[in-house]
Amino acid sequence: MIITTKFGGSSLADADHFRKVKAILEKDPARRYIVVSAPGKRNHDDIKVTDLLYSLYDAAEKGGDTESLLQAIYDRYLELVKDLDLTFDLGAEIDTIRRSLVKPEKEYLASRGEYLNAKLMSLYLGWPMVDCSLFVTFDDHHLLDGPATYQKGSDLLKGLEHAVVPGFYGADKSGIIRVFSRGGSDITGSIVSRCVGADLYENWTDVNGMLTADPRIVSDPKTIETISYQELRELAYMGASVLHEDALAPIRQAGIPVNIRNTNQPDEPGTMILASDTDCRGHLITGIAGKKGLSNIQLDKDLMNEEVGFGAKVLSILASHGVPYEHTPTSIDTMSVLVETADLEKEREAILEELKEALHPDRICIEDHIALAAIVGKNMARHPGLAAKVLQVVADAGINVRMIDVSFSEVNMILAVDEKNYEKTITAIYNGLQEYL
Amino acid sequence: MIITTKFGGSSLADADHFRKVKAILEKDPARRYIVVSAPGKRNHDDIKVTDLLYSLYDAAEKGGDTESLLQAIYDRYLELVKDLDLTFDLGAEIDTIRRSLVKPEKEYLASRGEYLNAKLMSLYLGWPMVDCSLFVTFDDHHLLDGPATYQKGSDLLKGLEHAVVPGFYGADKSGIIRVFSRGGSDITGSIVSRCVGADLYENWTDVNGMLTADPRIVSDPKTIETISYQELRELAYMGASVLHEDALAPIRQAGIPVNIRNTNQPDEPGTMILASDTDCRGHLITGIAGKKGLSNIQLDKDLMNEEVGFGAKVLSILASHGVPYEHTPTSIDTMSVLVETADLEKEREAILEELKEALHPDRICIEDHIALAAIVGKNMARHPGLAAKVLQVVADAGINVRMIDVSFSEVNMILAVDEKNYEKTITAIYNGLQEYL
Repeated sequence: MIITTKFGGSSLADADHFRKVKAILEKDPARRYIVVSAPGKRNHDDIKVTDLLYSLYDAAEKGGDTESLLQAIYDRYLELVKDLDLTFDLGAEIDTIRRSLVKPEKEYLASRGEYLNAKLMSLYLGWPMVDCSLFVTFDDHHLLDGPATYQKGSDLLKGLEHAVVPGFYGADKSGIIRVFSRGGSDITGSIVSRCVGADLYENWTDVNGMLTADPRIVSDPKTIETISYQELRELAYMGASVLHEDALAPIRQAGIPVNIRNTNQPDEPGTMILASDTDCRGHLITGIAGKKGLSNIQLDKDLMNEEVGFGAKVLSILASHGVPYEHTPTSIDTMSVLVETADLEKEREAILEELKEALHPDRICIEDHIALAAIVGKNMARHPGLAAKVLQVVADAGINVRMIDVSFSEVNMILAVDEKNYEKTITAIYNGLQEYL
Repeated sequence: MIITTKFGGSSLADADHFRKVKAILEKDPARRYIVVSAPGKRNHDDIKVTDLLYSLYDAAEKGGDTESLLQAIYDRYLELVKDLDLTFDLGAEIDTIRRSLVKPEKEYLASRGEYLNAKLMSLYLGWPMVDCSLFVTFDDHHLLDGPATYQKGSDLLKGLEHAVVPGFYGADKSGIIRVFSRGGSDITGSIVSRCVGADLYENWTDVNGMLTADPRIVSDPKTIETISYQELRELAYMGASVLHEDALAPIRQAGIPVNIRNTNQPDEPGTMILASDTDCRGHLITGIAGKKGLSNIQLDKDLMNEEVGFGAKVLSILASHGVPYEHTPTSIDTMSVLVETADLEKEREAILEELKEALHPDRICIEDHIALAAIVGKNMARHPGLAAKVLQVVADAGINVRMIDVSFSEVNMILAVDEKNYEKTITAIYNGLQEYL
């Protein structure tokens, strides 16, 4: 049994958290590898080390005050060194960073938060550090080169009983440091899991897992116990995010489950992201999510259904403007295309004109302020009355459903409502279907 | 107030029916124009005059026994002439038809059923006959030339207090007789209604109107009292047909309502097809219909939703093979396209190959034996709980719903179920929602 762990910035913000991490690692000897983020906020008004580093880059570029930023970074790590009673030449590390400012490299600087944190964690645990720039490889398009990364990572890590790996960055073929987008240490955790052939990837953060609904709308929502990759993708797409979206690919291919855990409540089981979509564990409804800011492009045309290719033309015109569509429910003489208003914005008039020209609809209009609510649960299909129940609780709340889309995949049920009814809809569904969550 | 009437073949099958027609016309002096079909079946084993005429054409083409067919046609009309006590040189009319057989013209022959029936009705009522070939004009593509038809028809008919017009046929610009597809007298009725500026088009047939469900599935379904054009189109598309589908265009543009009536029960109000889609008369559910024989093309691809243009490509490939789609529900990494299996048949393998080549799905498959059930009602949107109720009664019947599509037009709700559950689904919905029908 091999477990890879990844600890986020809030789990590594201070010495207390380092101690919690050590206790977690010691509790299960299968936890042999740890990927670390840069130190996060210690309190609400604190600044993340990575943000200090980006500010440092800006200051260096614009001739600003780099010294006070270097001092702030030094102070953050010095606190850790002192509190953890480590022997570490922090000054030399900061000097290296200072010297690089002559010709500042944004991604290199951004990566130093994880780099230094891994150094300290390595000293604190007495585990060797393996710099991720030695195996996380970016290609010429600045994208992860999976095959090269997995090969080099396996070669480096598999022989080690333990390792501390900084997250977030890697290097391109000429050795220049490249970073993932923010939160990218999740990806490093996935990569390490895959490289060492882990049985489980534990992603330690500051929440008890994914929530079944948005806590800003529903008070104290339940935690999701188990979720499939596909359900996670559906919920993440609807704004319920817990992992970096690119973190799934490496482990999905390898069939490695992920456990979202809380560093501050290590006895909580967290959320288990199942390795297989055929695993039937879980509740009928896994989670509820949604988003606002959608627009409905509605085309009406008499005898539309006799015009083969009508729908294809509509979607092609949207695609040619780079506008993805969410759903396209149709009726016999009506076609709706739901898109994100933000995607439409600059192209709105051009798209309307092109649609008119190409399709001669009797009527075309764009209605904004539409919201989507998604009820996600791969087991929903096993309970035919559930969709009825969802619609009933929404109806009971006096909300008019503008569109319903339940696809053959049956992993979810999507409702469109007027934006002003969005929170009310989510609340009605959550409260009305608690027993299934 | 001007009412145009059209009587179908079963309403004109014998002298008794001619008498019923006369009584109906005399009951309301606003009924000033009548369009007639050819005589239909007098009993289950009878042959429609139009079918005799098509057989006559075939016999003439293949050197078969034309005389016995001419005799059968003669006998049908002779019975009417005798029973109605008319003075009419039927022999001369049959001779004209016989002479044409030297160089048989299929459409001319097919049109003689309506032509002769209009002659008899004209004599019987004492109303002038206006041959539809004088104004119903076909263009070079064998399609109705609306503007020419309406202009000529208005000129001919508007000055007449009464007129009898044969249905089903017209003439092209060189005077050659052309016919609509079977049931096309409905179109002639619409044309005459439009030409005379009718306030109402009464379409007299042998049923009390459109039924709320298929009587082969549901026993003794209620009659639809009022229905909008759009609802009618939705139901007709799902197989619940009562009017020729091309009969709606002329009157829809002119805003003329249609009343489907029963010649044998003239006191029944029948079904009123409303002139305006904004007319809110009617029940919450107008009708339930559906069809079998659908296939689901299912494409799964990881990160599909990030590929702008995916859906457009899929539908374009289908359109290039002439395959229209019914619905295309999507999930984040899944796209379903519902098509008629019959449309797919010859192209199945080619389409699969093209989709694979163009889109590289992780998985693609076609599932046959899908059925659709449509619950149609323009007022459904006013009752948010109705969709819930529909799903509940279907769930209570133990039927798994494979897809739900409710569009922004909100005129209908479409469910996909396995074909084997089709009748059960229709019955469950009809019985469970009787109160709304």
